[in-house]
Amino acid sequence: MAESVMLEPPFVIRVDAETLKTFCMEALTTVGMAVEHARITTECLVRTDMRGIYTHGTVSLRRYVQLMRDGGIDPRAVPEITNEGPAWAMIDAHQAVGMVAGHVGMTTAMKKAAGCGYSNHFGAASAYTLMVLDQGMIGMAMSNTDVVMSIPNGRGAQIGNNPLSYAVPARTQPPLVLDIAMSTVAGGKVVSMKNQGKPIPEGWLTDKDGLPTTDPGVFTVHGALTPLGGHKGYGLALMVESLAGVLAGAGITTDMPTWAKESRKACNEGHTFIAVDIAAMMPKNEFYTRMDELIRRMRTAPKAKNATRTYIPGEMEYESEAVARTHGVALTDTAVANLRGLAEDTGLGGRCPV
Amino acid sequence: MAESVMLEPPFVIRVDAETLKTFCMEALTTVGMAVEHARITTECLVRTDMRGIYTHGTVSLRRYVQLMRDGGIDPRAVPEITNEGPAWAMIDAHQAVGMVAGHVGMTTAMKKAAGCGYSNHFGAASAYTLMVLDQGMIGMAMSNTDVVMSIPNGRGAQIGNNPLSYAVPARTQPPLVLDIAMSTVAGGKVVSMKNQGKPIPEGWLTDKDGLPTTDPGVFTVHGALTPLGGHKGYGLALMVESLAGVLAGAGITTDMPTWAKESRKACNEGHTFIAVDIAAMMPKNEFYTRMDELIRRMRTAPKAKNATRTYIPGEMEYESEAVARTHGVALTDTAVANLRGLAEDTGLGGRCPV
Repeated sequence: MAESVMLEPPFVIRVDAETLKTFCMEALTTVGMAVEHARITTECLVRTDMRGIYTHGTVSLRRYVQLMRDGGIDPRAVPEITNEGPAWAMIDAHQAVGMVAGHVGMTTAMKKAAGCGYSNHFGAASAYTLMVLDQGMIGMAMSNTDVVMSIPNGRGAQIGNNPLSYAVPARTQPPLVLDIAMSTVAGGKVVSMKNQGKPIPEGWLTDKDGLPTTDPGVFTVHGALTPLGGHKGYGLALMVESLAGVLAGAGITTDMPTWAKESRKACNEGHTFIAVDIAAMMPKNEFYTRMDELIRRMRTAPKAKNATRTYIPGEMEYESEAVARTHGVALTDTAVANLRGLAEDTGLGGRCPV
Repeated sequence: MAESVMLEPPFVIRVDAETLKTFCMEALTTVGMAVEHARITTECLVRTDMRGIYTHGTVSLRRYVQLMRDGGIDPRAVPEITNEGPAWAMIDAHQAVGMVAGHVGMTTAMKKAAGCGYSNHFGAASAYTLMVLDQGMIGMAMSNTDVVMSIPNGRGAQIGNNPLSYAVPARTQPPLVLDIAMSTVAGGKVVSMKNQGKPIPEGWLTDKDGLPTTDPGVFTVHGALTPLGGHKGYGLALMVESLAGVLAGAGITTDMPTWAKESRKACNEGHTFIAVDIAAMMPKNEFYTRMDELIRRMRTAPKAKNATRTYIPGEMEYESEAVARTHGVALTDTAVANLRGLAEDTGLGGRCPV
């Protein structure tokens, strides 16, 4: 099943997508999750892996299952619409796994036009905005997170790095899909440098005094990620916190336990999903022609000296997914270790595909 | 009228807000603008000055009036709703001045929940999001602009720095108001360094080869501003371009002439305004209590070594406005020169308050 074509670090192996999905479904079933919800969660995580976003795919499943066992996530929860209007809905996810909450949230937003959620770690934000593309809609998804980021002039972690994703469909060009956190770099990058024993560039992290540091070891101890561009990333993180945390009725900043450390407490993260029905506002053909033109301009832009290619957001992931479909899903050594650990945890030792 | 209290560079003088407004109204009347539209435009620009955003206030009025004379802006245009649904409206501003288009756009969004515009340079995006605060709503405003920014791996200006603003009300704390462009720094900062004959820090600008430069002189010649955080600012600029340009039916990237250089052609910029009615989703009191708590946490966060204060977005502008109300509007030497030039252009020499 596995091939090693186009396998570059940090990836170590490729595994057939369907085989990987079967194992994830089985693991989720061991903690009592309904088949439909297990399928949603699995599709979401494996597609994230296929897109090359190795930090937010099946690498996290072992931890999610642990939280389901310990009470931090309820595998049997069914998200519920608690209030709604013509163009919005408020959803209580009842501590369902983030993928189920996100799926219900984005589906509801597509039916309505805007919606707010309430759940826990929802993986890669783009997993939900991708859902709108086939429907000829524009999608946005955002989530607050436990605190990992400093604020300008502040010391220590005061706010999450609150990811934001959007997706816009096109016709002949690949779609626009952005998925970014509001920190200068992801925490995973800092941890990776720490594991390699390397210093980090100044500007990624602040130390216990709130000053720039090159020591990756202070992260999650008393250091914090810096916001993207200082006040700009800080301001965007507060926008996400206001919509996905405050307005959604979810936890705010320090109200949320760190799901990587605490598995018994509910995560209380909040999400907001927005869908825009293009055809209502503009003939779909005209919109697609205009998007194709915008995207074409970006891709054919004059190149900087020594650069050979300009990309649009999501283009690398789009290509990664095509390769994964043919040659299998590329996994990192961390993902392999976590899948093996998950197999042990759930008594599925013989079923682990890696 | 004018006082010099709390006057720091780049400001050179304070002038009474009402006196300044009277002059702006008179100048706009000379080109045939209706009193109601002149008032909207004036209130918008003077409030921007009062908030200390000296790059987007009355400093631009001379240029706007020039465009009204030459045909780039129609001072008599009345924005028109061309299509609408329960929660959105499409507005053709018919090349009205951006302040009028923005006012109609945000007012319509408040009535509806979301709207798209079509006009020209609309000044500071926060001028519109501020409108929602008294209504107990959350507001967002965004605009595409003529191309001034490079894209990762690209050379030259390929996209605008597409500003985004949002505002969220609170009760006892100052409101959250962010207003940022998607470039690392504003073009005005580069021009200011050029005027002072100083080099700029590496990372602000790329040269004709698309490589980093410290020479501010290449800006608007063949250099371009860099996107905030590389692919992140680029991706956010494309989000704004998709919503405010493509979906709004306005110009896209190079379709828009540079309003600072070209006064005869329509600007064709597009804007999108979003309003969220808080009370529909959550009891207003609960929302305000939760926002106050979030804002309080940011303002009382532990301080970095040598720092004395943490701010929320819009807090400095909030304080600047309070001072301006009491002591007059602070203006820069460029704003003073432009107001005097405007007085000459419009035959109002004796009426100029500075």
